[in-house]
Amino acid sequence: SPGRKVLIVYAHQEPKSLNGSLKRVAVEELSKQGCSVTVSDLYAMQFEPRATRNDIVGCLHNSEEFNYGVETWEAYKRGGLSSDLIEEQKKVQEADLLIFQFPLYWFSMPAIMKGWMDRVLVQGFAYEFPNCYDSGLLKNKLALFSFTTGGSREMYAKGGISGDIRYLLWPMQHGIMHFCGVKVLAPHICFAPEYVSEEKRKEMLTAWAQRLKTLWKEEPINCSPEWYFK
Amino acid sequence: SPGRKVLIVYAHQEPKSLNGSLKRVAVEELSKQGCSVTVSDLYAMQFEPRATRNDIVGCLHNSEEFNYGVETWEAYKRGGLSSDLIEEQKKVQEADLLIFQFPLYWFSMPAIMKGWMDRVLVQGFAYEFPNCYDSGLLKNKLALFSFTTGGSREMYAKGGISGDIRYLLWPMQHGIMHFCGVKVLAPHICFAPEYVSEEKRKEMLTAWAQRLKTLWKEEPINCSPEWYFK
Repeated sequence: SPGRKVLIVYAHQEPKSLNGSLKRVAVEELSKQGCSVTVSDLYAMQFEPRATRNDIVGCLHNSEEFNYGVETWEAYKRGGLSSDLIEEQKKVQEADLLIFQFPLYWFSMPAIMKGWMDRVLVQGFAYEFPNCYDSGLLKNKLALFSFTTGGSREMYAKGGISGDIRYLLWPMQHGIMHFCGVKVLAPHICFAPEYVSEEKRKEMLTAWAQRLKTLWKEEPINCSPEWYFK
Repeated sequence: SPGRKVLIVYAHQEPKSLNGSLKRVAVEELSKQGCSVTVSDLYAMQFEPRATRNDIVGCLHNSEEFNYGVETWEAYKRGGLSSDLIEEQKKVQEADLLIFQFPLYWFSMPAIMKGWMDRVLVQGFAYEFPNCYDSGLLKNKLALFSFTTGGSREMYAKGGISGDIRYLLWPMQHGIMHFCGVKVLAPHICFAPEYVSEEKRKEMLTAWAQRLKTLWKEEPINCSPEWYFK
């Protein structure tokens, strides 16, 4: 793993949170392995989640009727995306592995991270029809969703009130990452850390560090409906 | 339906878009029925999607370690949420029906709308353990997700490359609306409007207006895994 590049996209407001600790553990462990690690700390960056005309520098392709997908595609091709997007795209381009670290909000990622997906992964950069899914433009990269939940493992069991946790991974892992050609490693989930002891939370951090030690030997999941819905 | 109240939460940058037209059609048709219709036009409002300390007015419950869920819950109870959130909560409280109108971004709603969910539906207002799912605090309300897609109906078929469209509805309909006690009407989906003729797009608008005429007679879906994953 020496020389491998990792981008951690991190969305928590509080450095002292478990998410903050999970992020730090990843930076430390991966750096120790000789990886080069970059963090996009979205709240600290005050990252803009809204997809607007401001993402295009200069004139629009069609100023009569604003179409975000078309405009960002055209802007990407002529190097006319806003600088914050170009910056994030560079980090993605260089990375071998993307780690998304966040607390689950409403069965999904926080809006600030969804905005990162909406704005950074534009057509031309991340995919370009018909190059999507296995031929997406970000192929040869890996992604891993690492998150904490409010609900317990039992709530997120098959037959539990919130349904199998894998159900909610479909849009994020298949709909976003697989669509861009990125291979997906098994998610890393810390269930209900707010309701366990300080000791249990420490164990969660240790388990994450432990997993990271052999991460580069892991095989991606088979990102198809069978994995999610059996 | 006279006297019924409808809130349309709308997320598109361009009034001339099909989403803009679908929103207008809904306002017109429902108003004609005697409903009172309110629109939250998120881009026009420059709605803030980021969940931050700014959502709490005055002192924090725990300023040592910021926990968004705890802080907004406490702020809600003492009337200390930011005014934009109180405003949206009032609209939700008064509504019999919530319509979410948006273009599908990455198998989900645009970040600006996800931010509306993250920030408006706080504990104490939308749910309060153990009052969630069928006993969520917004019971006796209805919700309907109305959206456009980039991909075609074939891509979103069972066995299609993007999987059954119902797979991606789980986090939005079950994870958010059902969690808050809201009953969910069948979604309204316009597939790939950018790739069809102007005439087809007009038919899409007519079909939506037509559906709205008998909307109040519809039964909610059975919002359980069977509906989504068969």
